[in-house]
Amino acid sequence: MTSPRRVYRHTELDRVLNPRSIAIVGASPRPGSFGERLQKNLDGFSGRVYLVNAKYEEVGGVPCFSSISALPEVPDCVAITVAREAAEPIVQEAGELGAGGVILYASGYAETGKPERVAEQSRLTELGHRYNLRILGPNCLGIANYLRGARITFSEYPKFSAPRPESVGIASQSGALSQSLAQAIERGMSVSHAFSAGNQSDVDIADLVAYLAEEPSCRAIACVFEGMANPERLIAAADIAWQADKPLVIHKIATGEQGALAAMSHTGSLAGSGAAYLAAFERAGAIVVDDFEALMETAAFFAKAPKPKARGVAVLATSGGASIMAADKAEIHGVPLPQPQPEVTAILESHIPDFGSARNPCDVTAQVVNNPESLGACAEALMGDHHYGAVVLPQPVAFDVHTPRIKVFSDLAARYGKITCNVLISDWLQGPATREAEMDPNVAIFRSMDRCFATLAAWHKREERLASPLPAYRRLAPAAAARQAAELLDAAPNRTLTEREAKAVLSLYGVPVVGERLVTSEAAAVDAAHQLGYPIAMKVESPDIPHKTEAGVIALNLRNETELRAAYARVTANALKVADASRINGALLQPMIPSGAEIMVGARVDPLFGPLVVVSLGGVLVELLKDSLVAQAPVSADEARQMIEKLKGVAVLKGFRGSEPVDLDRLADTVARLSEFAADHRDRIAELDVNPLICSGRRITAVDALVVLQRNDK
Amino acid sequence: MTSPRRVYRHTELDRVLNPRSIAIVGASPRPGSFGERLQKNLDGFSGRVYLVNAKYEEVGGVPCFSSISALPEVPDCVAITVAREAAEPIVQEAGELGAGGVILYASGYAETGKPERVAEQSRLTELGHRYNLRILGPNCLGIANYLRGARITFSEYPKFSAPRPESVGIASQSGALSQSLAQAIERGMSVSHAFSAGNQSDVDIADLVAYLAEEPSCRAIACVFEGMANPERLIAAADIAWQADKPLVIHKIATGEQGALAAMSHTGSLAGSGAAYLAAFERAGAIVVDDFEALMETAAFFAKAPKPKARGVAVLATSGGASIMAADKAEIHGVPLPQPQPEVTAILESHIPDFGSARNPCDVTAQVVNNPESLGACAEALMGDHHYGAVVLPQPVAFDVHTPRIKVFSDLAARYGKITCNVLISDWLQGPATREAEMDPNVAIFRSMDRCFATLAAWHKREERLASPLPAYRRLAPAAAARQAAELLDAAPNRTLTEREAKAVLSLYGVPVVGERLVTSEAAAVDAAHQLGYPIAMKVESPDIPHKTEAGVIALNLRNETELRAAYARVTANALKVADASRINGALLQPMIPSGAEIMVGARVDPLFGPLVVVSLGGVLVELLKDSLVAQAPVSADEARQMIEKLKGVAVLKGFRGSEPVDLDRLADTVARLSEFAADHRDRIAELDVNPLICSGRRITAVDALVVLQRNDK
Repeated sequence: MTSPRRVYRHTELDRVLNPRSIAIVGASPRPGSFGERLQKNLDGFSGRVYLVNAKYEEVGGVPCFSSISALPEVPDCVAITVAREAAEPIVQEAGELGAGGVILYASGYAETGKPERVAEQSRLTELGHRYNLRILGPNCLGIANYLRGARITFSEYPKFSAPRPESVGIASQSGALSQSLAQAIERGMSVSHAFSAGNQSDVDIADLVAYLAEEPSCRAIACVFEGMANPERLIAAADIAWQADKPLVIHKIATGEQGALAAMSHTGSLAGSGAAYLAAFERAGAIVVDDFEALMETAAFFAKAPKPKARGVAVLATSGGASIMAADKAEIHGVPLPQPQPEVTAILESHIPDFGSARNPCDVTAQVVNNPESLGACAEALMGDHHYGAVVLPQPVAFDVHTPRIKVFSDLAARYGKITCNVLISDWLQGPATREAEMDPNVAIFRSMDRCFATLAAWHKREERLASPLPAYRRLAPAAAARQAAELLDAAPNRTLTEREAKAVLSLYGVPVVGERLVTSEAAAVDAAHQLGYPIAMKVESPDIPHKTEAGVIALNLRNETELRAAYARVTANALKVADASRINGALLQPMIPSGAEIMVGARVDPLFGPLVVVSLGGVLVELLKDSLVAQAPVSADEARQMIEKLKGVAVLKGFRGSEPVDLDRLADTVARLSEFAADHRDRIAELDVNPLICSGRRITAVDALVVLQRNDK
Repeated sequence: MTSPRRVYRHTELDRVLNPRSIAIVGASPRPGSFGERLQKNLDGFSGRVYLVNAKYEEVGGVPCFSSISALPEVPDCVAITVAREAAEPIVQEAGELGAGGVILYASGYAETGKPERVAEQSRLTELGHRYNLRILGPNCLGIANYLRGARITFSEYPKFSAPRPESVGIASQSGALSQSLAQAIERGMSVSHAFSAGNQSDVDIADLVAYLAEEPSCRAIACVFEGMANPERLIAAADIAWQADKPLVIHKIATGEQGALAAMSHTGSLAGSGAAYLAAFERAGAIVVDDFEALMETAAFFAKAPKPKARGVAVLATSGGASIMAADKAEIHGVPLPQPQPEVTAILESHIPDFGSARNPCDVTAQVVNNPESLGACAEALMGDHHYGAVVLPQPVAFDVHTPRIKVFSDLAARYGKITCNVLISDWLQGPATREAEMDPNVAIFRSMDRCFATLAAWHKREERLASPLPAYRRLAPAAAARQAAELLDAAPNRTLTEREAKAVLSLYGVPVVGERLVTSEAAAVDAAHQLGYPIAMKVESPDIPHKTEAGVIALNLRNETELRAAYARVTANALKVADASRINGALLQPMIPSGAEIMVGARVDPLFGPLVVVSLGGVLVELLKDSLVAQAPVSADEARQMIEKLKGVAVLKGFRGSEPVDLDRLADTVARLSEFAADHRDRIAELDVNPLICSGRRITAVDALVVLQRNDK
């Protein structure tokens, strides 16, 4: 794995993505050929187009040059439509000339999986780096830049006139999906750019996102991608978008890959890359959507929405059914629907008949809807109410009469610095008034009540993050602890540390661990138990027995010497059934920790994401119910606390059924310390489990721990 | 609550829903009036229309009658467009004349919540029953019957010519939502009827569903509703649809009401009516969709789909991105994507270039797509493969070139008795080829990959249910047990039974309960423990202490007389802190049950649904993680087994981490017996909890039980 390069910035990509001049290499008069189609697609381009093909003097009346070297200027963008076999020398020529970049459409490179084709693609990458030549593709559908009317693609991206200010920029790995999204133009959306990355031999999805982040012509970014060899580059691009205050809406496909990751510890299966991507994007402030269908709708909302003036949302429905749907979804997504101010209620009541509802959600009934004056008065009253940052306007039926309503709500939204969310419930998906809503700068249109409220919740969440940015990370353990831990890890005799070794190294980081004694005889056990105090827990220590419960080498709650002696005999016998005597270090004795809530904290060094920390409710059920959260390590105690609060079962920690509430700050501190350990030793450790961490009040104790090292030599 | 009437059958509703003659009462020449709009909406009606209004001789050149009595025939359907105040005498007149039914549009009845208006609506209901006159409404938008071109509504339902055989019938409580759904016609779908029920003074959503179930002109039903005073009537309608082999796709709104249900036991909060509806519909074989957007799409699929010839599905994608999306969703919904037969693979490989994929999901690449001959060959090979019952054809971009593909896939699907699922991924929602797909009898169109695979999974599930219908319910406990239990319940001194009383009554039904002794002195406790055998569990018995753990009146794992005596003193003292001595029956002693998986079984008599049984993974976490399933009681042991298998945490019961697997048949038998108890005594009990039911191997033991009676006199 090569070390990831930094993302390209706007100026490095501007020549190829926003060219003043384009050369079509492989220009051709043959109908349906890539060259011919590309030439047609550039009919609206505001810059200069050059045709290149040694076979022709002219194509369709336009002069044709024998090579790009023969052109009157060095082109910004070289679109290479020739077959794969002929492409490499042209890329080299473009590089030598100093072109801005190339777009390479030919397929049959690394995607075939054949070693010689992978090598062929690697040579392209090298050419790009050698000549500082940006390459899109190969196996790429091309791009559409609507600012310049440049559809540099053999495929049919929508035609489109000048983008409006509330435009969305599209970055997709897949060419087909970039077109799918760009076709939102056909229903009235404004798109500034639609990029596809193809095989990403040079420019990849991260670069394209970063370009759009710094590009003034779009207000939001829609991104769909499959996976990254270096996901941190996409995270870096998301950071650039955050810094530029440009909402990035992202959808990941290929979520089924998780199963492929095999891992020895429990943490492994929980921290699959799907969860890791999600955690990383959330941390970077990106808006993650679960459905492809939500991508453009959500991005269009963010391209139009002002900063929310209030978290409350008003619903102005024209039917009881629609108002119930809105209330259902507001509840699910946690969007508050506060009641209007008394003076607003009075206005509503003066217009709404007794079979409607003057509360929020408001049902003005068809009677009011068909009366423009009354509807306007109700709309203005709600829009002017300081409880509300947005007004949701469900539209069950697509009718022409809805068109003037869009204008009324748009004007009000503009006047009050708010936004109207027009929710089309109708199955007439592009019916009357939908285009007007798509094209309106102050009205967002949704075709799903659920997605409307999911988006409003994301809008509020983004605002909260803007208002209180994450504090910078500060180390908790001293540097000396890190050095000492490194020494212990390097000196460990086995790849899997014993529980005792694991706890010793974690305690250097301030992780509270249970006290213990290792004994190798029954007599020594009796002596140790006397010192530690009954009741006692006993566990056989062996590098060959990582899962002790299953092996029957644990005895808990031993209350006196008789029980201790019996247990010693039993666990020793069980251990010898599964491990060689030479691999058994002895029996570890610990005082029993009084019961409490059980938490599991783990960490894993992911091949893509680096160190990840996982927190879950402990015990047997974690593996079954998957109540866990993942984040990139290290996390601060504040972030750890946020993770804990998000656990579905967090109530167990908050004084459930009369138990003592857990000191969550102390617990968060422990999680943060464990994450720091994982991050510090990312080059040494593979996996780490602390299971359970028993918590009750201020008492937080790691009772068992497992550390697996990366070294394969042991 | 009145006892629910049976649903109306097709013949009882046919005159009003499928009229040969319609009288418009309140006909008017005034533009925009209900009468005028209704008259216009009937311009395509194939039957006879009569205008009624004493104020006019004629309206728009059509003669106008002074009353319905003056008409030359008794009309099938009387559409009453007059104001509420004038409506009642007309309903009475229609009844006296023997009309088939009335449709009453006026608002302002029970929906206002005013007692006098509720009474006014009740009088309508009585008129309907007295004259055997069917009433739709009041507060109703009307109906559209596309077989007769009858849009008996003042509102704008789509115009539509003759429905095709693969039509969907729509039944909605809300008028606006019925229109939302009917507007699917505008994008090419075929709809036979669009009904709205309004205030349901007589005909309700259940009747409308039952009518469509028995109506030959539609092949599937789309139903949206809010709630029912008597949900069993809607379940009965679903049963009629099942018997008629007509798929019923249903979406419930008003899901937020759950919170309103307060209940004393844990079961209460789990078996809210949302879960109860879901369980009841599942049992009746209805297809429940979570999103309103899925309703017409899913119904259209079922209107077109043949019986599945195989569970396997083939994906023929034209881009890598689309094929990944399909694989993701197939995995999520458990739809198998088996690999093609070798001879099919050979055909695919001969057409697909090396940068595509000849496996399933198949990526034929743009190269094949643009070559009709190759595409046809690949399509035919997949369609002819006996592994597949359906072919999914993702369409990332809406292009004209896709139109002929619809035809190719339609012909193949027809030839092989299969179906093509065209998944439009594009944001051009009504782009080229979408209308053709909507109108094709062998091609279902989806605008979401997720919904496509969710629907395919529902298709398979329906087929499984058709292939192996639920066996008829057979009693498990003898009738004598039911009589004896009734006597015990009637004789119980308190509304909340003691644990001991509860277990005694449950054991009559064959529920295995732990043995026990009630003692009232320390000496008696020592004696009882000696007989039961150590270790012992001790619990204070008091009707005033339903939750014993919280009150500290439980002592577990008492190993000898010393511990027993100490515990007796402690729990007795704790009990006296929360209950009066006169309300403490004594201490209940039980042998400790060895640990095992903990299951909670509960029951609740729901005000709407009657007796419900709830199964969940026991212990503290059930309340937090909501891993529970609800069904209407009684359930057979087979059904109980299916519930258990659906628990997210079922692995805990199957030999998790070396524990002995639970005998699930025995557990299911116990659940069935508990459900039978709840059903038998639905008039006596309010709630029932068995928590925990400790399970290990064949050993299933109810360790604690709570029964709360309905009687408020105690």
